[in-house]
This record gives sequence, structure tokens and C-alpha cells, in this order.
Amino acid sequence: MKEFDLIKRYFSEQVVKRKDVLLGIGDDCAILKSNDAQNIAVTTDTLVAGVHFPHNTSAKAIGHKSIAVSLSDLAAMGAEPAWASLAITMPTADEAWINDFCEGVFELCEYANVQLIGGDTTQGPLSITVTAQGLTIPEKHITRSGAKPGDWLYVSADIGDAGLALMHINGDITLTPESAAKVQRKLDFPKPRILLGQALRGHVSSAIDISDGLFADLQHICTASNVGATVELDKLPLSDEMKNSLGDKAIEVAVNAGDDYELLFTVSQTNKVSMDTSVGQTTNRITCIGQINHSNKITTTLNQEPINITMNGFQHF
Amino acid sequence: MKEFDLIKRYFSEQVVKRKDVLLGIGDDCAILKSNDAQNIAVTTDTLVAGVHFPHNTSAKAIGHKSIAVSLSDLAAMGAEPAWASLAITMPTADEAWINDFCEGVFELCEYANVQLIGGDTTQGPLSITVTAQGLTIPEKHITRSGAKPGDWLYVSADIGDAGLALMHINGDITLTPESAAKVQRKLDFPKPRILLGQALRGHVSSAIDISDGLFADLQHICTASNVGATVELDKLPLSDEMKNSLGDKAIEVAVNAGDDYELLFTVSQTNKVSMDTSVGQTTNRITCIGQINHSNKITTTLNQEPINITMNGFQHF
Repeated sequence: MKEFDLIKRYFSEQVVKRKDVLLGIGDDCAILKSNDAQNIAVTTDTLVAGVHFPHNTSAKAIGHKSIAVSLSDLAAMGAEPAWASLAITMPTADEAWINDFCEGVFELCEYANVQLIGGDTTQGPLSITVTAQGLTIPEKHITRSGAKPGDWLYVSADIGDAGLALMHINGDITLTPESAAKVQRKLDFPKPRILLGQALRGHVSSAIDISDGLFADLQHICTASNVGATVELDKLPLSDEMKNSLGDKAIEVAVNAGDDYELLFTVSQTNKVSMDTSVGQTTNRITCIGQINHSNKITTTLNQEPINITMNGFQHF
Repeated sequence: MKEFDLIKRYFSEQVVKRKDVLLGIGDDCAILKSNDAQNIAVTTDTLVAGVHFPHNTSAKAIGHKSIAVSLSDLAAMGAEPAWASLAITMPTADEAWINDFCEGVFELCEYANVQLIGGDTTQGPLSITVTAQGLTIPEKHITRSGAKPGDWLYVSADIGDAGLALMHINGDITLTPESAAKVQRKLDFPKPRILLGQALRGHVSSAIDISDGLFADLQHICTASNVGATVELDKLPLSDEMKNSLGDKAIEVAVNAGDDYELLFTVSQTNKVSMDTSVGQTTNRITCIGQINHSNKITTTLNQEPINITMNGFQHF
């Protein structure tokens, strides 16, 4: 199958047609309308088979996840998703696989009002690189570097389920079929917290998405902001699957496992109420799990007693 | 070596610092200043080892080419290059290789005033995906779809040298060491025709860069513009290396081989003089090689006699 036919057939007939896309797929470049009233947020992520998702992951899940990881980065900046470019390298041009993959891609693009504006299809071992772009309000984007001592540390929804699914897939643990299906869905179809990110805009002092693991990503905030943090481990929001299947080990998995794509963010005492009100207008659940301090390290407590816990986030290489 | 260290060390300390990059590498996203007075051109290309460059290509050449193919797409739209995101997947984090690769990347970025605004480093078989963005003047970007019957067909510089280098590498032909070095340089370090693209803006009716081969890319223009073309094969600009080493076969190689990254474009009789004047202010050499017509196919002549020639551009899969 010809590269050109592939691209034309699957990527040119998408549902989302944004007014700010003056020229979409099909020429040497896409042309986008630029605007004084906005800035542009850009993020790039590569997913490699066997590294970022298990080899037997469904094509639809791979499609979903390829877009989701980049939209999650946009969410962490408080950006509104707008455009994405998708480069696929794959061993063979299997039509059924591409069809399922595209279903995963376009379902999420449609949900997030993202138009695919470019792509490349090449032959080789399976990997996908997405560059996603979003719109931010000038001077209102959220960085990793604004956390201040005294700020409260929050996380969205539950953490650790994606890690639990990987443990099940790797045979480290055996879940009931119902639990396995539930956490597998969290691993395969993570929900980028797009509306939460926008709700946090103007209220929080810093944010990051948890792709590498809670501790690893908290460390990124601390390093960028030149602060430390205390995490109250007993406050971590864990699903019933995590608590029931891992018991005492649940916390260690929750803080170290990556792939949750929840948002981790900090807010000053002053902005706490306005943030709560803003987040209350979305369907997102958030939990305060600790506080930023003047130290240069992350410390942990369990039921208000200091405790040590292994820290190692997910790192490539 | 850690992904984070790699990225920090090589990509955060670049020379180009653009004023429109409000936040560069290091957060979840880069933040770019947007502007009413410009539009944004975006292009994505993946290079896979063994497909888009021979396995023994030098790291510096791979770095250069990764950026060059995308800047060539920007050039074909008449865009001014601005920002690039670079995703590398590589088997091992070899410091010397990365150093040479980055030298190739940053030399070209510096020349073109492109700031690297994002990246991802993952482990796997070698491939590189670049998304490059450029700025265009609203309504002045050049597409593939504006060619009109009667327009003249032009190409920049010489074509076929990259194909000749590949033939030499594959052992299909033996060149003198001097000739081999010269065409190898054209293959490894293609020059995106950035200033030519901008000079053509407002004068030409369509443009494309020759990455798939002259005929394949001319076919893209013809399809997008719903026209046909006649190419005068005796007018094709060929290097001495092409003429001396391939003789009668030179034309066939020149029209089919890809990787030249020259610009192919069309101009109306009315705009010919203004285009010549505009191009004359650059150092680019352009050659008229034919004319657009009402048919729906590409025909060829040699010394004004109709002639048939095999047409097959480079296509992945």
C-alpha cells in the first residue's frame, strides 16, 4: 500500500474541522491561523512498542494513548488542545490494524476538538510520535516552576491503577477478571485531564502530569521550583483495586508507577477556595496529599509519622 | 544514562534563542507567542535508518538531514522557519553519536534561526521524527494546488545527485573518489531552499519540494491543481557527475530519484519577470523545464520530440 493512499484515506476524512486550520493535511505543510489573543503550547511524545505499551496492546488503545499522552501535557499547562501531527512507523501496513488505531486516535481527537494537521507514515518497528499543540491565554499558562513553600500539593482522581495493570500483565500479581479489566482500561485508555487543567488556570502555582510516577514528577516540580515537599502517604487517593490487591504495598506502587496521566499541582493557601470553586464546576475529583516546603527534598509521612519509602520513577534508558 | 539528563545536556543549551519562544524545553510544553500578522506552517517527517538513509550514514549527516527535510517542506510553502520539535528513538544512548548528531542538528538550526522547543528521547531502533514550524504571511503561503495551464515549470539547482550517491553506495555504479564525495555530500547534507521559497512567495502559483522524485512530486502538483504538464527532458539541470557517470541514463535517474530537496514550482507568464527579479536577489539558480497544460497527465519531450520515460518516484511501503 502506498504511503500517500494510506494518509489520504485515514487522515484526510476526519470529523473535526477547526476554523483556525486554514490548510490541513495534503500539502507540504499545514497552515494555522495565528492570533494576538493566544499563545501556543507545543509538546512532543514518542511511544515505542514494548517500552511505552506492552507488545500485545490493542491497536485502538495504542491510537488512543498516542494522542492522550500529548493532550495530558497540554492539560498540565492549562492549554486548550487544538492541533496534532502524528507520525507512525509500522512494520506492515495492515489495514485492520490501521483502522482500529485510527478509531482510537479520532475518538479522542473528536472528544478534545483536536484536528490532525499533519502526519507521516513510514516502515519500520512500531513507534508513534505525536506533536500536539494547544492554545493558552497569554501569561496564564501553568508551569512546573511556580511552587512556593506553604503551597498545598494536590493530585487528581486515583493513582497507581496503570501500574497495577502492568503488574498483572507481567504476572507479578493475579487480579480477578473484573479488576483486571478495570485497571487495564485505565492503562490502555488514560483520560487526559483537559478540563481540569483549564479549571486550574489562574489559581494554581504549578502543575505537571504524572507520566513518570508521582515521586518522579513531584521531583520535577521541586527541582524546577527550587523547593521541597512532604507527601502524606495515607492521603493518597487509591482505587479499591489497588487497596484490595496490594494491601501494604499499594502505596509504594502508587508513588512509583507511571502512566497514570493524572495532574499533580500546587496551590497557595490564598487561592485554595477559588481553585475549589473552579474545579467544582468540572466533574474532577482532587485530593490534597501534602505541602511544599523550604527543603530541597521530598519527605513522606504515614499517619503523621515520618517514614521512608523507595523512590524510583519510570525512566527510559 | 537518564532520558532527562540527555535532553537537558544537549538540547537545553542551544545557541538560537528566539523572542517568540516564551518557554522553551524543560516543562510539559513549550509556549510560543502567537501573532495576528502571521500564520503558522507545520510539517512532520520521520526518518528511519535503512529506509530514509543508509545504515552507515554519519551521525552528523543524520542530524542535519532530520532537520533539513522538514525545513525543505517549510521552504516549499514560502515559510520562514521558526521552531522545531525533535523525537529520537535510538538503540543505545551513545554519547559520541549524540554529540555528532546534535552538531548536525544545531548547525542547521543556527543557520535557519530555528529554536528547538521540544523533544523526546526513547529507546528502540533508530528513527527520528521532526515537527518543524514556520511563519507565513497571511494569504501568501504557496500550495501545491495553484498551478494553471500555461504556467511555466521550474526547478532549482541540479537534480539526481542524491540518487547517484545512493547508486554508488549500493554498488550499482562506481564513481571517482572526488565525484563520490561530492554527491555523497548532496545526499547527506541537503540544503533546504529556505530563501528561495521566501523569494517565490507572491510570484509563483504552486510549489513542492522534491523529496519523492521529480516526476512523483510533479504528479502531486498536477493532481492537487487538476492539470497536466510537459517536461522537456533536455532542459533538466544535471551536474557534471550525473552527465559524466550516467550518460544516457542520467535523465531517467534524475526524474525518478528522490532526496534532492530542490524546489519544483510553477509561475504564470505574467509573473515570470517579477519572480526572476525576486529570485535574482538570492544566490539560487533556477531552470525552466516545461509547462503546465490542460491534460491530466505528464508527458515528456527530448529535443522537442515526444518520448516515453519510466516514472516511479520513491514511495514508502
